[in-house]
Amino acid sequence: MGEFELLARIRERLPADGSRIHLGSGDDAAVTLPGGATATSVDALVDGVHFRRELFSPAQIGHKALATALSDLAAMGAEPGEAYVVLGLPADFGEGDCLELLDGMSALATATGTSLTGGDVTRASELFLAITVVGHAPGPERLTSRNGAQPGDALVLSGEIGAAAAGLLLLERPGLGGALPAATAERLRARQLAPHPRLGAGLALAAAGATAMIDLSDGLGGDAGHLAQSSVAGLRIDASTLPLADGVEAVAAACGRDSLSLAVGGGEDYELLASIPPAQLEEARRAVHEAEGTELTQIGEVAGSEVEIRRPDGRRVEPEGFDQLA
Amino acid sequence: MGEFELLARIRERLPADGSRIHLGSGDDAAVTLPGGATATSVDALVDGVHFRRELFSPAQIGHKALATALSDLAAMGAEPGEAYVVLGLPADFGEGDCLELLDGMSALATATGTSLTGGDVTRASELFLAITVVGHAPGPERLTSRNGAQPGDALVLSGEIGAAAAGLLLLERPGLGGALPAATAERLRARQLAPHPRLGAGLALAAAGATAMIDLSDGLGGDAGHLAQSSVAGLRIDASTLPLADGVEAVAAACGRDSLSLAVGGGEDYELLASIPPAQLEEARRAVHEAEGTELTQIGEVAGSEVEIRRPDGRRVEPEGFDQLA
Repeated sequence: MGEFELLARIRERLPADGSRIHLGSGDDAAVTLPGGATATSVDALVDGVHFRRELFSPAQIGHKALATALSDLAAMGAEPGEAYVVLGLPADFGEGDCLELLDGMSALATATGTSLTGGDVTRASELFLAITVVGHAPGPERLTSRNGAQPGDALVLSGEIGAAAAGLLLLERPGLGGALPAATAERLRARQLAPHPRLGAGLALAAAGATAMIDLSDGLGGDAGHLAQSSVAGLRIDASTLPLADGVEAVAAACGRDSLSLAVGGGEDYELLASIPPAQLEEARRAVHEAEGTELTQIGEVAGSEVEIRRPDGRRVEPEGFDQLA
Repeated sequence: MGEFELLARIRERLPADGSRIHLGSGDDAAVTLPGGATATSVDALVDGVHFRRELFSPAQIGHKALATALSDLAAMGAEPGEAYVVLGLPADFGEGDCLELLDGMSALATATGTSLTGGDVTRASELFLAITVVGHAPGPERLTSRNGAQPGDALVLSGEIGAAAAGLLLLERPGLGGALPAATAERLRARQLAPHPRLGAGLALAAAGATAMIDLSDGLGGDAGHLAQSSVAGLRIDASTLPLADGVEAVAAACGRDSLSLAVGGGEDYELLASIPPAQLEEARRAVHEAEGTELTQIGEVAGSEVEIRRPDGRRVEPEGFDQLA
């Protein structure tokens, strides 16, 4: 199957065009009528670096690639609009694999109201994806960057952390699963294999007045550092408040790791970390719960000049290096 | 050098932000204020498929990747705006190579008024690039798709063809160069190594009333087919009018190839093929010459139900398959 034929087959599977799309896939360029402000982010995923084909099905790869890209839009408080997809396909990734990958991506696109508006396909020696996502807002003041955290702001986190790292450990060492209930292990694996971009929480936090926001792709330790650096601010995080996902402690114990270090160092949870004036905290909590059915937890405050994550006894939590190839 | 440090070094080299950019590189997403209509196109380039590192310097790879992406905007008649760049970097492509690649890309970005607004960098086993370009127009009616060609329209071509294919043959077999003057050989090689996106010609053709337009990336034979298919129209092309670049005939002869088949089958000329009502032809010719100092040649008309490229004696020109790995 040649490039053009494959592109045509792919086009048949794309979700219906979005409202801003004037001319969709199949021309030299897509034509859209954005209006307002747009947020644009690009993400690359490479086999052996960001995922491993032996652990992920093609549909999971497609889902995860789009999910991680959309998570950047969530962190801006943008409404998802269009996605453009580049696929590099090795010889041993067949037509069926490719269409299954697209189906996994399409399902998430449909669920999130994202249009797969264009793309390119090429031969490659290893599987890679590059995803460009475009989100929208009525105006730039409705989007939240990383750089507005103010001393005195509350530091809040959506959902729970540590699940994606624990899930990866379970995938790599299936024997570990004996340490916890089957349903719990399954939930942890799913957080690694099929993460959920917090688009509703992002919109809710931006609307409630978040002053800075970032998604947790590298892990709370690293991403808190990025937010602090952009805002030229310090962050004080109380480790006892961190919402660890159910089962993280058991997996960490079974590996002889410290659960807090694992949760803080392990990336890919795709939860949102935001700073917000304390007066807005209750409104944000309510709005996030309404949008996603998930909790917003205050884990600390904007204060000092560095990022400190301290246990009740005063010791710091050191993020433990952790990635897909660990 | 880690990903974050490399990204910071890259950011220092990016051309100054464009007028539509509210928040540039370094956050979860770039924020732009597009207005009007936007044209968005993505292109992937992989070592060994779209270029070969032994023939191209890093700066030439960077230039060509952006040039081929911008050529799609030219084919819409869009004004270039922003570009987002994904780089997959193998271990043997060092920091110096990477920065040289970015310098090559930046120079073209500056020359064309394009802002390098965001990107992502990852490890990879082979060098690849994925470029997303965003162009702008006051409204969608100012952009020219592939699908509006009408029977009776004149079929026009900017510049000259065959140069990129001849240039690649010269790069692959340096001995061939003896068949022609050194300056001519140099010009042909440059058309392969450093193509020029016809942004000015595209804007001029769209403004002059082109009904359909496409850029020649696959070669006139293939791309005329794409335009005809999108427009549900036939094209009659008179081979005797085709503007072959100086030296193409000599290179073809030295290889024992037919020069017309080479020029029609060889891609990567990045000239523009457009249909336009005959009454607008003179205005378009003048506008393209003014914008780019290049000629617009009528090579046929929109007629019939298929794409025919005929020689004066009535024989068809068969495009000769030809790509970077031929």
